[in-house]
Amino acid sequence: MITIAVDCMGGDHGPRVTLPACSRFLETHPDAALIMVGLPESLRGYNHPRATVVLASEVVTMDDPLEVALRRKKDSSMRVAITQVKDGAAQAVVSAGNTGALMAISRYVLKTLDGIDRPAIAGQIPNAKGLGTTVLDMGANVDCTAEHLVQFAVMGSALVSVLSGNENPSVGLLNIGEEAIKGNEVIKKTGELLRIASQTGDLNFYGNVEGNDIFKGTADIVVCDGFVGNVALKASEGLAGMIVDFLRKEFSRNIFTKAAALVAYPVISALKKRMDHRRYNGGALLGLRGLVFKSHGSADDLAFGYALTRAYDAARNDLLERVRVRIAHAAPLLAPVEARLPTEAAVLV
Amino acid sequence: MITIAVDCMGGDHGPRVTLPACSRFLETHPDAALIMVGLPESLRGYNHPRATVVLASEVVTMDDPLEVALRRKKDSSMRVAITQVKDGAAQAVVSAGNTGALMAISRYVLKTLDGIDRPAIAGQIPNAKGLGTTVLDMGANVDCTAEHLVQFAVMGSALVSVLSGNENPSVGLLNIGEEAIKGNEVIKKTGELLRIASQTGDLNFYGNVEGNDIFKGTADIVVCDGFVGNVALKASEGLAGMIVDFLRKEFSRNIFTKAAALVAYPVISALKKRMDHRRYNGGALLGLRGLVFKSHGSADDLAFGYALTRAYDAARNDLLERVRVRIAHAAPLLAPVEARLPTEAAVLV
Repeated sequence: MITIAVDCMGGDHGPRVTLPACSRFLETHPDAALIMVGLPESLRGYNHPRATVVLASEVVTMDDPLEVALRRKKDSSMRVAITQVKDGAAQAVVSAGNTGALMAISRYVLKTLDGIDRPAIAGQIPNAKGLGTTVLDMGANVDCTAEHLVQFAVMGSALVSVLSGNENPSVGLLNIGEEAIKGNEVIKKTGELLRIASQTGDLNFYGNVEGNDIFKGTADIVVCDGFVGNVALKASEGLAGMIVDFLRKEFSRNIFTKAAALVAYPVISALKKRMDHRRYNGGALLGLRGLVFKSHGSADDLAFGYALTRAYDAARNDLLERVRVRIAHAAPLLAPVEARLPTEAAVLV
Repeated sequence: MITIAVDCMGGDHGPRVTLPACSRFLETHPDAALIMVGLPESLRGYNHPRATVVLASEVVTMDDPLEVALRRKKDSSMRVAITQVKDGAAQAVVSAGNTGALMAISRYVLKTLDGIDRPAIAGQIPNAKGLGTTVLDMGANVDCTAEHLVQFAVMGSALVSVLSGNENPSVGLLNIGEEAIKGNEVIKKTGELLRIASQTGDLNFYGNVEGNDIFKGTADIVVCDGFVGNVALKASEGLAGMIVDFLRKEFSRNIFTKAAALVAYPVISALKKRMDHRRYNGGALLGLRGLVFKSHGSADDLAFGYALTRAYDAARNDLLERVRVRIAHAAPLLAPVEARLPTEAAVLV
């Protein structure tokens, strides 16, 4: 039995989305149990033989400063849910709440793995191969050193090998065009370290990739700092949204285009499905001593269900141990970071 | 008469693309002349009453290090073309060559405007409003200070007011989600400076925007460093390419989908046109004492023609003087940069 703790209050929609998603998840996963955490009035009446309700008295809002989320709201649904993992009651936790707060509280409650300075968020972006390219960091760390980026690469490799079954996934380093000035100092140094890591068998370094390679699926994993990753993700969501809106508008322009829409429906529908980022919902917070998954704040119940399933798959395949082993193996490469940057580990918390 | 200098050797395809584009441009712009710069064997036989051929003995390749392009190839087609602007023979220059080299040589030959530390590349990305969002920097500067980003905002405002006729275009500062940690120190400081600039009337600051806002057209101009801008641009091109490929494949799957393609043709064709980045080809190198436009290296003759037209429109509307006036007006805000960072102006050259 795999048990997942759920912050039922998180996200733009809260229980209105999380409760139906939990019910459907329980139906489709007979060997799973849920610990559902939320305010009494939100969870009143929720009942399922494999669901345990745990009450919390506070909710972290999307606007709460980290300080408030971490120091003042000690009985928030988010924190209580994370604590279930810490206490061993659950193997993973899922929240659609405030990303910064989720990262800070997870880090405070669970601590980071040995050899990891900063946890990162790994998300998936659909690619032309019909798979997802795993991109990290998606927005937890806005300034990264080369060593941080190498840690992301090692952790991302563990994640993809666990969830996709590809034991030796390739890692691309996000950079700008070869024809332009080739990256800043951090990127150049990261490239050198990744080449070393590749030689020692800790990962499979593809080389530099550019923004378009995320969608080509050139490498299984793309590593970048959280600012760049977040912009690339949101830019792509924006473009996909623009295209879908455009097709909707054009196809409903007049009676002829409406007829065309009927005929073209299977193709357009396949396109929408391919581009549907709900199917890729559920970013992994990697580098912690526990499995934490972040759902998009605006997720609907379908999307939230995908996040639950990713957390379940990760727990079932023991992602935590796999990341720990990979990091330990790469320790000679990562160790100097801890020595050089003793204070950085405390930046977020 | 507006005269444009053209580096006929630049880009992935060189004269095979640039010459037909020049011929078509001359046909459609009866008050324009071209100075066509290239190797003798490439331009032999080219003849048009409004085209002057100027020979060069070298070509900057896509792989040339800046050092080679700048110091050794002193008779490159790129440099000779830029020199036409310096000498007053042309009002603007267009090249599809190596971006880093184009920036470095332009900077060396033309120099920067007073008050500008670093030139930036401003490109256009199609948005949901059917217009282009002007994004800068697109890849010239991989590390930027807050003051650089403010200079980009002022120059971008001048560019858009000249080319679109919108006298007071809005400027958005690219940042990551409000729900996450809100940007790094540079971005926070840039926001403060832009708010001051907005109060003094030097620009119209919209506020922070996210990656998806580029495609929504939330602000007319989006400001970011060159690394982020380049990744966002290429990621979007990659996604657009993936979608077009997907539609092509799906519509040719069987006889029914082929029939659907015929019926849906007007809509799909409109979508392709909307997403066709060739129409937005031609990035402006802003901040120099001369107008320089960069075409995409992989541009075909249609795309290269758009770059020529943008350069022509900018010259005809005296973009250079408009940028100079705006920068001078914003001088109190920009002046401290020169004082504080005396060495940075020489970074590229």
